[in-house]
Amino acid sequence: MMAALAERYLLALGWLSVYRRNDLSGDLIAGVITAILLVPQAMAYSLLAGLPPEVGLYASIAPPILYAFFGSSRALAVGPVAVASLMVAHALTTIAPPGSPDYITAALTLAAMVGLVLTAMGLARLGFLANFLSHPVMSGFTSAAAIVIAFSQLKHLFGVDAPSNLRIDQLLLHLWQHFTDVKIVALSISLCAIAAILFTRRHLELLLTRVGLPHSFADLLVKAAPLILVAVTAMIAGFWQLDQTGGLAVAGDIPAGLPPLTMPSFDARTWTSLASAAVLIALVSFVESVAIAKALASRRRQKIDPDQELIGLGFANLGAGFTGGSPVCGGFSRSVVNFSAGANTQLAAIVTAGLIALTVTFFTPLFYYLPQAVLAAIIIVSILGLVDVATLVKSWRYDKADAVSLMVTFGAVLIEGIEVGILTGVALSILLYLWRTSRPHIAIVGRVGRSEHFRNIKRHSVTTWPNLLLIRVDESLYFANTRYLEDHLLAAVAERSKIEHVVLICSAINVIDGSALESLETLVRQLRSSGVTLHLAEVKGPVMDKLRRSEFLEKLEPGRVFLSTDNAVSALAAPVGSDDAVSIETLSRTGS
Amino acid sequence: MMAALAERYLLALGWLSVYRRNDLSGDLIAGVITAILLVPQAMAYSLLAGLPPEVGLYASIAPPILYAFFGSSRALAVGPVAVASLMVAHALTTIAPPGSPDYITAALTLAAMVGLVLTAMGLARLGFLANFLSHPVMSGFTSAAAIVIAFSQLKHLFGVDAPSNLRIDQLLLHLWQHFTDVKIVALSISLCAIAAILFTRRHLELLLTRVGLPHSFADLLVKAAPLILVAVTAMIAGFWQLDQTGGLAVAGDIPAGLPPLTMPSFDARTWTSLASAAVLIALVSFVESVAIAKALASRRRQKIDPDQELIGLGFANLGAGFTGGSPVCGGFSRSVVNFSAGANTQLAAIVTAGLIALTVTFFTPLFYYLPQAVLAAIIIVSILGLVDVATLVKSWRYDKADAVSLMVTFGAVLIEGIEVGILTGVALSILLYLWRTSRPHIAIVGRVGRSEHFRNIKRHSVTTWPNLLLIRVDESLYFANTRYLEDHLLAAVAERSKIEHVVLICSAINVIDGSALESLETLVRQLRSSGVTLHLAEVKGPVMDKLRRSEFLEKLEPGRVFLSTDNAVSALAAPVGSDDAVSIETLSRTGS
Repeated sequence: MMAALAERYLLALGWLSVYRRNDLSGDLIAGVITAILLVPQAMAYSLLAGLPPEVGLYASIAPPILYAFFGSSRALAVGPVAVASLMVAHALTTIAPPGSPDYITAALTLAAMVGLVLTAMGLARLGFLANFLSHPVMSGFTSAAAIVIAFSQLKHLFGVDAPSNLRIDQLLLHLWQHFTDVKIVALSISLCAIAAILFTRRHLELLLTRVGLPHSFADLLVKAAPLILVAVTAMIAGFWQLDQTGGLAVAGDIPAGLPPLTMPSFDARTWTSLASAAVLIALVSFVESVAIAKALASRRRQKIDPDQELIGLGFANLGAGFTGGSPVCGGFSRSVVNFSAGANTQLAAIVTAGLIALTVTFFTPLFYYLPQAVLAAIIIVSILGLVDVATLVKSWRYDKADAVSLMVTFGAVLIEGIEVGILTGVALSILLYLWRTSRPHIAIVGRVGRSEHFRNIKRHSVTTWPNLLLIRVDESLYFANTRYLEDHLLAAVAERSKIEHVVLICSAINVIDGSALESLETLVRQLRSSGVTLHLAEVKGPVMDKLRRSEFLEKLEPGRVFLSTDNAVSALAAPVGSDDAVSIETLSRTGS
Repeated sequence: MMAALAERYLLALGWLSVYRRNDLSGDLIAGVITAILLVPQAMAYSLLAGLPPEVGLYASIAPPILYAFFGSSRALAVGPVAVASLMVAHALTTIAPPGSPDYITAALTLAAMVGLVLTAMGLARLGFLANFLSHPVMSGFTSAAAIVIAFSQLKHLFGVDAPSNLRIDQLLLHLWQHFTDVKIVALSISLCAIAAILFTRRHLELLLTRVGLPHSFADLLVKAAPLILVAVTAMIAGFWQLDQTGGLAVAGDIPAGLPPLTMPSFDARTWTSLASAAVLIALVSFVESVAIAKALASRRRQKIDPDQELIGLGFANLGAGFTGGSPVCGGFSRSVVNFSAGANTQLAAIVTAGLIALTVTFFTPLFYYLPQAVLAAIIIVSILGLVDVATLVKSWRYDKADAVSLMVTFGAVLIEGIEVGILTGVALSILLYLWRTSRPHIAIVGRVGRSEHFRNIKRHSVTTWPNLLLIRVDESLYFANTRYLEDHLLAAVAERSKIEHVVLICSAINVIDGSALESLETLVRQLRSSGVTLHLAEVKGPVMDKLRRSEFLEKLEPGRVFLSTDNAVSALAAPVGSDDAVSIETLSRTGS
């Protein structure tokens, strides 16, 4: 029993049991590089969530190790990420003042709750729920979140104090009113930091290779650039005591030592007020992580199991909640760096976590003078890549409904905030889908040449027959579109006086629900009263099974159910007596 | 301009201009019979809505006349109905005490608001919105409303005072606690009334025909039974002064004269608090009316235009609001009586309205002693026929999802009340539909005999080819099911090592949205990396048009789009060099 459970859920048994020596060097190098990237990111995202820097570092130790054992991706790098940190900040503003002990406890509690939600969804195999966060909705949401995040960092960039729960317009007004408070030191450092990061990203590697450095070393230096920037600016700030002399906000005392064992709060009121945020953070984290994991897995022909991902991410978040960390999920840039640095298995993540653990144990005093303005610069540069205009352009060209969902989600997140915004997007994308299926495409078809193939008379030159109407509905029949079909079909019959038979081609009908069945019975009666017989053709197996359980087939008589449109035409358009038609009785035996 | 508008919306011009003399006798008789049925019903439904009796009578004069000019049904009888009256009572309880002047003004206002909602929906051609109230949801809602209505009449039946906004359990407790208040006179009268109505319905006509009365006269007597009952009980109550001696609640003074011109309230607070009720009453009224109108129209091969019905019902309700009436819609039993008594046109409704106008002008003193217990008996008997078990049984056999929607709506209306109940039902039926489409039926198909027809390998004995996988997805591809398809298709390929080509048969794919397109691009890449080429077949015109607007077809290469599955098999399963295949280029020209 335990063994079976372990084999099912403890995916590390898979890669550990077949671990190959050749994989080791790749995993070690990737682990080191990712750690170098992660240290400043983890502290920056803590700042974004309104938490002290060590919380992000703690969230980068136990959670990725737990994910390594339970997750199904080999290369996903789990830890604090920007969008989730923003959602955490929004959820916690109503609970306690940012940075206070209650605020930190609430963050741990939120992580544990997110973990519970994810694990429960995984055990209940509800991974499919994430499908309702469509790609355009996620894209609009992420773009808007990126903009909100960028604006939220402005105060650190300028070194101006501001409440953390301001809307963008309120924030800009606040900055405008407190223009004289701008700290020149902070602003200079942040502008230099942004310029430095942009420069290293775009030009440094080429430059280093040109001056003769080996390619791999140049690459490592580029990836270490943010850490180097952090170190250099901390040294400058420390040397000139800029926190005293220039009013520069610095990280300050970061407690040294491994993550503490912490206990989430079990206060019912906290849980109630965080519940909806926990569900949304869980969903967004899951969708993001699976998208990244799938993209990486497909490059090496590996497979991702969404339900197992839920469990892996769930345990990682539970781990965060009990070791002083904030909610975590798979980070995009970090995972790509990990992957392209050669990570073959989750051993790389364990190496990274070990290095972060070393850092918090021994090196936190080095970060005392780390300017918040530099962390803000790191956030802003890394977040602006998330603003996704390409998807909007593509959607606009391919499918206007998608583009509308994207833009509405984007606008709603900016104006109404994270939660309302994302729920609006989901509701709208569902409504647009329903709207589309409620007015299905209906085609009148005819025979293509001498084939057994039938296509739209408006698009192909086809043969038709005056006594016979072949009509194809391109949608399942369900409550929202039955009336549309009824009206459309009766109108088509009314236009053609010689019609004796109508054949409803069901090749695109995947479901006929109860309302639609009733509507079809009405159609049969109405057509019969005008001397027209309704037939069906190409009814799919599962649909036919259900029709047999109802009384519809008796009510359809003398209308018949034909295996193919071709059979229907032979029987109805040709002189009476053709053997080609398959009657309902024959069909029952062959089991359409 | 005016003429065009009149021709479009004033449907009476249609039937008036071609009015035939032969139609007149049918219309006159039907008008009289319906009026006889309507008088007690209108007063009873006023009682149900917590309104004085004349309000229901007023609602039976101007509104049906307005409907006669603008509605599209020839036989629909418009007036106060039970379910809408219950919804009115629920909406108004929070506004003012039942029966008070403020309460009556709020009822007029609600009627005007319902009228505005319906008219606006009609002008915006939003008739399709009503489709989202599926048949099972309406059935569950109506059954539960009938039960709520029946219980709400118990207090009148027993002659016990009780607040009008109690839940069923609270009401039963209240009646139990006030058991000693039961008025024997009221209880006896109501039990006799129920027995009398049930008897006349089931046996009277047969009895009368047996004793030698002509069939038509017997039929008229049966239909007049409620009115006779009202008259007889009023005479009994008046003769023995039962309101004084037995504590019997009677109708009391009903003001004589034609409906007053009234003004709905324009108080913003009233409008805000009634807004959601107005929308729901409008939707329910519309769905009910259209269902009845369609059923009657189909028996005479007439047509109903849902958008015009919205306008007809909208004007009727606006009329109610300005002439002292409560919200109206088409009543089922009344319309059937009207129709089967021979109503050919809406002239019958005008006759009915004229007779009701005569009644309120001259005969209201006759109703002074009309016992409320008798009205309650009329409501209970007529309402219990609305409890609809047949649909539940049918749904359970045919489609469990429908049955679940029905039962949840039923339970939610009983427990949570009208509004929450119906919205829960709508949301659930949509969610169940989405759930179904998010895990579509996917079939692997093969050739049936030597035909060009391809069916499921699990259901038919068919030919397949080792290097070729023919897979048919029975659902449009959209955000909620793309991952399911991806996983399913990759698993199917992984099981079959010899596969070189996968043909996705798109005959049931009516839409490919942006998320699905992205997923297909991923599939193409993933399959290619395992040496498998993806092709499409039987792509529908509208879907192909959209694919051409994207870059997908280039990314698909060397995969091709085949006109038919048969073409795909000839090209891919046969030796190389077959001419039968239609490549993308050819297809572009023929315009698939």
